[in-house]
Order: sequence, then structure tokens, then C-alpha cells
Amino acid sequence: MIASARMISTPRAPWRDKLRVVIFEADTPAGKAFDVALLWAIALSVAAVMLESVSSIELDYGSELRAAEWIFTGLFSLEYVARLVCAPHPTRYARSLFGLVDLMAVIPTYLSLLVPGSQSLLVIRTLRLIRIFRVFKLAHFLGEIEILSHALRASRAKLIVFVSSIIILVTILGSTMYLLEGEEAGFSSIPRSIYWAIVTMTTVGYGDITPQTISGQMLAAIVMIIGYAIIAVPTGIVTAEIIESARARPNTTRVCMECMSEGHGASARYCRDCGAGLENPNS
Amino acid sequence: MIASARMISTPRAPWRDKLRVVIFEADTPAGKAFDVALLWAIALSVAAVMLESVSSIELDYGSELRAAEWIFTGLFSLEYVARLVCAPHPTRYARSLFGLVDLMAVIPTYLSLLVPGSQSLLVIRTLRLIRIFRVFKLAHFLGEIEILSHALRASRAKLIVFVSSIIILVTILGSTMYLLEGEEAGFSSIPRSIYWAIVTMTTVGYGDITPQTISGQMLAAIVMIIGYAIIAVPTGIVTAEIIESARARPNTTRVCMECMSEGHGASARYCRDCGAGLENPNS
Amino acid sequence: MIASARMISTPRAPWRDKLRVVIFEADTPAGKAFDVALLWAIALSVAAVMLESVSSIELDYGSELRAAEWIFTGLFSLEYVARLVCAPHPTRYARSLFGLVDLMAVIPTYLSLLVPGSQSLLVIRTLRLIRIFRVFKLAHFLGEIEILSHALRASRAKLIVFVSSIIILVTILGSTMYLLEGEEAGFSSIPRSIYWAIVTMTTVGYGDITPQTISGQMLAAIVMIIGYAIIAVPTGIVTAEIIESARARPNTTRVCMECMSEGHGASARYCRDCGAGLENPNS
Amino acid sequence: MIASARMISTPRAPWRDKLRVVIFEADTPAGKAFDVALLWAIALSVAAVMLESVSSIELDYGSELRAAEWIFTGLFSLEYVARLVCAPHPTRYARSLFGLVDLMAVIPTYLSLLVPGSQSLLVIRTLRLIRIFRVFKLAHFLGEIEILSHALRASRAKLIVFVSSIIILVTILGSTMYLLEGEEAGFSSIPRSIYWAIVTMTTVGYGDITPQTISGQMLAAIVMIIGYAIIAVPTGIVTAEIIESARARPNTTRVCMECMSEGHGASARYCRDCGAGLENPNS
Repeated sequence: MIASARMISTPRAPWRDKLRVVIFEADTPAGKAFDVALLWAIALSVAAVMLESVSSIELDYGSELRAAEWIFTGLFSLEYVARLVCAPHPTRYARSLFGLVDLMAVIPTYLSLLVPGSQSLLVIRTLRLIRIFRVFKLAHFLGEIEILSHALRASRAKLIVFVSSIIILVTILGSTMYLLEGEEAGFSSIPRSIYWAIVTMTTVGYGDITPQTISGQMLAAIVMIIGYAIIAVPTGIVTAEIIESARARPNTTRVCMECMSEGHGASARYCRDCGAGLENPNS
Repeated sequence: MIASARMISTPRAPWRDKLRVVIFEADTPAGKAFDVALLWAIALSVAAVMLESVSSIELDYGSELRAAEWIFTGLFSLEYVARLVCAPHPTRYARSLFGLVDLMAVIPTYLSLLVPGSQSLLVIRTLRLIRIFRVFKLAHFLGEIEILSHALRASRAKLIVFVSSIIILVTILGSTMYLLEGEEAGFSSIPRSIYWAIVTMTTVGYGDITPQTISGQMLAAIVMIIGYAIIAVPTGIVTAEIIESARARPNTTRVCMECMSEGHGASARYCRDCGAGLENPNS
Repeated sequence: MIASARMISTPRAPWRDKLRVVIFEADTPAGKAFDVALLWAIALSVAAVMLESVSSIELDYGSELRAAEWIFTGLFSLEYVARLVCAPHPTRYARSLFGLVDLMAVIPTYLSLLVPGSQSLLVIRTLRLIRIFRVFKLAHFLGEIEILSHALRASRAKLIVFVSSIIILVTILGSTMYLLEGEEAGFSSIPRSIYWAIVTMTTVGYGDITPQTISGQMLAAIVMIIGYAIIAVPTGIVTAEIIESARARPNTTRVCMECMSEGHGASARYCRDCGAGLENPNS
Repeated sequence: MIASARMISTPRAPWRDKLRVVIFEADTPAGKAFDVALLWAIALSVAAVMLESVSSIELDYGSELRAAEWIFTGLFSLEYVARLVCAPHPTRYARSLFGLVDLMAVIPTYLSLLVPGSQSLLVIRTLRLIRIFRVFKLAHFLGEIEILSHALRASRAKLIVFVSSIIILVTILGSTMYLLEGEEAGFSSIPRSIYWAIVTMTTVGYGDITPQTISGQMLAAIVMIIGYAIIAVPTGIVTAEIIESARARPNTTRVCMECMSEGHGASARYCRDCGAGLENPNS
């Protein structure tokens, strides 16, 4: 109803709808081909950005890389205009997250004409990679992404509590280490000691700052064992949620024929919402 | 009954009760605003302590940071007195864990007048961070904290067994390494070799002490693979408990009054075993 | 039927069938002995390759190691020919994965006569180790391998999504780090900074490239905490699948013929729902 | 019956039985006190061994530490003789694992009279720590130890498959790295490169050997991501087993009153072994 109302109010050209299906959807052969081409263009343009940052390659192939950059920028600009033209609500698209990301993929190159030689523009260009998530709709990964993101969302509150506790813990442990090690060996301030505590508790362990005193090494050993043991906590949180999410899914295959409610357990014999008998899934 | 008895025995001023609700509780708008202000004061005062420990910042902004410190100390002293005044049992509050933490948040600054220039007082001030846990009651994290702390409490005995085994293992492996590497390369005593074994088995791997002999590197490889494989044990312990805690919660609360079957989901309205109506848990 | 048809069309010598049972199967004593001997030959020949790469050992025992290499190559060549002779479909075997691996175990040594002194041939010889998987059929590990590989296959799509997200994340974080740290301290190009981000996020933490600026260390701390927390995601994915695989196995196989209830344990003799006798799964 | 037969054949002195209860059991107050004293003696004697290995402490307190060592050796010798005397089967005890460990706790000190100054004897003395496991029977940790060791035993076959695959993987990856990095930067032989691969894949990351070439760093990044992702496998294995072990336990509380078989599920209504009705656990 809503769609037909829009069709009437703004009689759109049919080529726009065709373009929209190609660009925004992935169910047709043309839509799939477009997404694959986009994936390659994004990957190649980011590879070019990376190579440009290597000074030896920049010296030898700088002009070729800049040419490639302008070609990709041209293609992405065309794509952005096409998306604006064929989107049902152009302003809504332009303000959406993906709309801004699409715009940010082309802006830095144009800006480099005005502000030449800026390194930060080079880095902003790598944000184009985010656009790859747009292409994931192509594959059959949607269900998997949903389970994972649902599990992460469901365990968000627990993870915030965990990360807050870690931050308070590393602050106190780092400060104590600053006291024990004095000014020696890189523990020159509390922020640096907290940086050391994070490096140690997350088991990264660069070794750029290491304790030298006996008491410092004893505290460091305690920090390591704490870090080694409590990694179990986020793991347990997320694992429990993924098991829960995965288990919740098979339930949705059983539907009550009376009230059409979903999600009945595999062993249920009566609908938990209306009390009607459920059909046996195996008969 | 107990509360009314107390009300009669000590007729308290009504402003005290109002203050108590603001300071100790978080359900009213004023209580929430107080907790948010306290959160910011704690965070800013600890940030000031950190900056004071950086010698270059201390040189330039030392007087400003000391002024900020006295302002925060004044605020926290006022808060401590207010808590003492409006607490139903002032001495019980003063002796409680949070009472001592609240006191410790202001003592070091006053002490620094008597014992000038002490670095340890600087570090004790970061313990103020523990007070942030007091503010967590503000948010809807209480249920999450309960599940996590219940899971950790339930798996405490298993974790103690695990950590004891790790300590015995690193002692024996560290001593063997001391034997294999001789006096070379930092393995100069058994405690240092045990420190190395902890650094290695927890997969931190600073690299400040590394084996140089062939036999030492072979033992190190075994230590690493052991450490990599047995991280699974605490993870498994905590995960099993979190799954158990999360599963125990919704299930045990609801029982069908007709057939006495248990384990009905939180949203179920009819018994899945006999089809009788379930009582609403929230009414 | 198919087997007998083949037997008729190509009347095979009986010693071929006997040889085939010894070489390709592990149920007879001779087959087991062959597999154990093969396991030792593979292990010893790879040990010889390793020792040959150590220059001090190569100087002293070079000729002995080369002699051992020719003996092992001779044995493996004989084995390859024997497999070709007694395989029911020689060309199909020669084109199979294990057929190619078996061939690759002998080719490098013969090639070294034509292309002397090539180091890459030394390394290709270590690929012989893959042949050890062939011997695993000997042990009772088949069921375990099946559960593990089934769990990994089932979680493949989720792991691809996870690894893709990690790659996009380290690219963006590494590029930002390149911007923050400038040209200092090893962050000399975007690819090197991405290499640093991978070293840090996977909690390996070599310490060959470490941030020196305050802002760089702050970003590094965030990268570490992200890496420490999201290790929970693959762990949760695989754990959920292993639990699912292990649970799926015993349950789905047994059904009560009287009340059609499912999920009886492997050792149950009577239905737990109606009390009727269960059929024996092994008779 | 067997016990009484032994009592008749060898009429034992009653003090022997009393001593046996004190030394071998922990249910009486005297038995508990003995175990606590033993725990302290083991801990202190191992601490003395550690301090003796620190050269600066050995110089100052060498004679005191040696005196303490002889006191502890005397106590442990007395204990060993007492165990031999009061054990029901002295030779069986002497040959058991704990009997050998008890003997090894005193032998090195006596040997040091014959072979003076041997460092290896110092290290063997730390094996006394294993005796601490003997004291664990004191606490209520037995159930926890049983769950953990059952979970590890049950997942042994899967862990062997996993560790074998890791060893084959690091051998092949390490050899490839030896090829890529040439002789530079510590990758001087295949065994050293395999050592590097283990350091990297287990996420220890010392940084004593790091790749310098672009191709080497790319392979290293792949090794890290593999190591970061497959840690999920042992974790999943052990977690699944712990969940299984913990779930199996509550089942054992239900016993069939007809055939006395244990381990019936919480929802079972009939015995799965003899078909008799089970009593309702909640009525």
C-alpha cells in the first residue's frame, strides 16, 4: 500500500527502479556482479593507499598510484551519484551511516587538491574498507552475522561491567607498580605504569617496559596470573550467549496453529500462549 | 517493624532522611544526579593524580593540580561527613568496607601536610577508583554483576585448584630451566627462572629473559604449548558456571499449579505439559 | 556388485590384494605394523631434514645425513610404487591429495641431483609430515577427529565473518596508528602499522615495534583490550558447535518404538517416558 | 572380611593404627593438624631451596639455609620412616607414586654429602612441591579435582589430536619461514624457525626472533591469526567436557529402587535399565 502510494505521488522512471535493484540489492545476477565488482574496487583502492604509504614504492610508482587513486575516486563518485539518484529517499540515504561512509570514500581525494600533501587524508581513505560490510549482504553470511551480533548485543551489559572492572584494576595495579619500581626501567609516571599493566594483563607483553626489582616482578607475576585467569570471564559470557542464541533459533520452527505464536520448545505439547495443543513435529 | 522501632527510639530530623535518600540511594532524580556528579568527581580527581605523576606536567601545572586536589579533597570530606551524619548507624558505616574506602579517599591529602613529598600517598589516592563500584548501583548493571559474581563464586574452588596447580607447575618448570640454562641469559636464580616460567606460561612473553640453549628452547616450547592448551581449563570452568547461572534464573521461578511441572519460560502463559494456565509472575 | 564386476573385468593377482590390505588398511596386524613403521620413517626423515639445516651439524655429519636422506627416499619411492601397483584405481590414487603428497615426499631428493644446493627443496621435504595424518587412521582418534572437524566445518561461516571483521579492524586501527606515531619507531608505512596491529590484537606482542607517543600508547591500550575481549568470539563459536556436535551424536540415534519419544542415552535399555523396552543399537 | 583376615594374620600394635590415621587420613583433628604442618614444612623447605639459588643471599645466609635444609630433611626422613612403619603394605607404599616422591624429597640432601656442590640436586629438591597434592585431600577440593581431572581425561583424545595438528602445523610453517627469511634475523636453522613458530602461534611472542622481510611479516601475520583463532579449539573441547561432567553429576543422585542403577536424568519417569517406575525427586 505504502509503495503503491509513493509510486503514484512521484511517477518514477523505470530505469531508476532497475538501477536501484542492481545497486542496492543482490538477488539478481546484475546485482551480484555489481557487488563483486565493488568488492574488488574497494580492495584494490585500499591496497593502492597502503602501497602509497611505503616510501620506496611511492618514489618509484608514485604517479601510477595517484592515477589509480583518481580512477577509483571517479568510479566511487559515479556510484555515489547513482545511489543518490535511484534511492527512494535521497536525503535519508545521504544522512544514513552508509551514505556518509560512501561520501567519505571520495571526499579526501578531492580535498587533497586544496590541501596538498596531507598524510591524514591518506589514512581517512582506508575507511573505505568499512564499505565491505555493505557487500556482505551478497553472501549467505547474514544469518551468521545476526547470531554473532545478537550474542554480542545480549552480552553487552556484562562486557561493559567486565571492561570497567579491568580498567579500575589496571589503574590500581599500575599505580602500585609505579610505587614499587620507583623511577627506574620505564615506570616513569602513573599513566606509563597503567600502560604497562594493560600490556601485561592482556598478555600482549611487548617487553618495552619490564619490572627490574624483586617486588616488582612478584607483582607482575600476580598481574599475569590474574590476566590469564580472567580471560575466562568474557569468553564465558559470549559463549553462553552464542549457545543461547543458537538454541533459540531451532525453537522458532514450531508454530502454534491457533494463535500463530512462534518459538515453542522441542518437547512442548501445548502452546504456552493460548493453551491449544501443538502438532507433533515428528509425526 | 524494626524500622518503625528505630524511628521511635531516635526521632530523626526529616532533612537527614532526605539527605540519606539522595546520597545512599539512586532511585530519585536527585539521587541519580548525585551519583553522576560523584562519578565525575572521582574520575577527574584520579586523572589529576595521574597527571601529577608525569614530571613534565608537574613542572608546568603543579600548582593548578595541587589546587584541584584540595578542591576534590574538600568535596570528598564534605561527602564523608554527610554520609556519617545521615547514615542510620554511623559507626557501622564507618567500619564498613565502603566507609573505609571513603575515608581513605581524603586521608592521604591531609597527611601530605605532615609528611611532605611522599610518593606513596600519591598512589594511595588512586584507590579512590574503587568508589566507582559504589556508583554502579545507579545503572541497570546489578543483575549482570550478580550473575558474574555468582559464577565466579561458584567456580572459586575449581579456580583455586587450577591456580595452585599452575603455581606448582611453574615452580618445577622454572627450576628445571634454571638447571638447563645454567647462569646464562638471565636465568641467574630459581626465583628469576620461575618469573620467566610465569611470563611464558601465561603467554605474556616479554622477551626480557629468553632461553639460548637448544635444550632450554625445547623446554620453553613445551611450556608454551602447555600454557596455550590449559588456558582452556579456567575458561571451561567459568563458562560452565555462567551457562548454569543464566539457565538457573528463568527456570526455577515458575511452576504449573495443575501438574506441578517446572521450568516454564518467563513469557509462557500456559503449561507446556498439561495446558493449564500459568500464573503471571509479575502480577 | 560393483566390486565383483571389477574382479571379473580385471582378474587381479591375489598378492596385490594382500599388499593393498597391508598398505592401505590398518585392521590387520601386518597393516598396523606397516603404519607404525611408516610413522617412524616419516618422523626420522623429517628430523634428518631439520638437522641438515643446522649449519654446525651439517658441517660435521653432512654426508651421514645425505646418506640417510637417500635411504628414506628409496623406502618412500618403493612405498609409492607399491601403492600405485596395488591401488584399485592407480590414476585416481595418483591424482588424489594423499597421492600427490606421497609423490612430493620423494621428488625433491631426485630434483636435488639436477638443481644442486637448493634450500627450498630442503623445506619442501618437511611437507612429508602431512603424511602423518594418513597414519591417524591407525588409532581410535577417528571419532574425535570427526567431531572436531565437524565442529570447525559447522562454524566455518561464522569464523569467516569473524576473521574478515578482524582484518578490516586491524587495517583501520593500523592506519590510524601510522597517523598518530608519524614516521617514528617503526611505524614507517601503513602495511608495517597493520603488521603491528595484528601483532598487538592477537596478543602476540613481539615488542619489535612499540608506540612511543602518548596518543599512540592510548590507542595501543584500546587495541589490546579489544583483542583481549573479542578472543571470546571465536571461542564461543567453536565451543557452541562442539557442545552441539557432542550432544547431537548420542541423542538422535535412539527412538522408543512404543511412544516414539527420542533422545534416549546410548546405554539405556528401557524408555524413560513409557517404560517399554528399547531395541539394542548394537544387535 | 579382607581387613579382618589381615588383622588376624598379623596382629598389629594399636599405636601403628593410630599413627596411620594421623599420617594418612585427614578426618580427625590430629590428622588435619599433621597435614597443615606438612604443608608449611614443604612450602618453607622449597622457599629455602629458592633462596639458596640466589647468589647474593647464598653468600650472606648460606650456612643458615643449609642448616634449615638439614632440619627439613630430618623431619621428612622421620615422616618417611613413619609412613613405612604404619602403612598396611609397606612395600606397596614404597613403590607407589607418592612413596617415590616422598623418598625423592630426602635423597638429594644425603647425596649432596657424597657429590658436593651439585646444582642439579638443588633443583630436584623443588620436586617436593608435588607432595602438596597429597595435602589437598585435606580440603573440600576433592570433588572439584575430580570434575576437572575427569573433564581432562575425557577430552584427552581430542587434545592429543589437537596438539599433534599444532606440532605438524608449526613444523611446516616454521620451515617455510626459514625459506622466506633466509639466514637473517635469527631464522638460522629449521629447528630455530620452528621454535619461532611455536612462540608466535601460542601468542607468547618474545620478540627475540622477528621477521624482517615483507613476505616473512605477511606469513607471521597469518600464523598469528591462526594461533588467535584456533585457541578456540582446546577451549571448546574442555568447556564441553566440563559442562558434560557437571551435568552428569546431578544425575547420579537419582537411584532406581529396584535395580539400584544410578544416573537417571532429572525428567526420567522410568528406570532405563529395568523399566521400573522411578520415584519423583520432588515429591
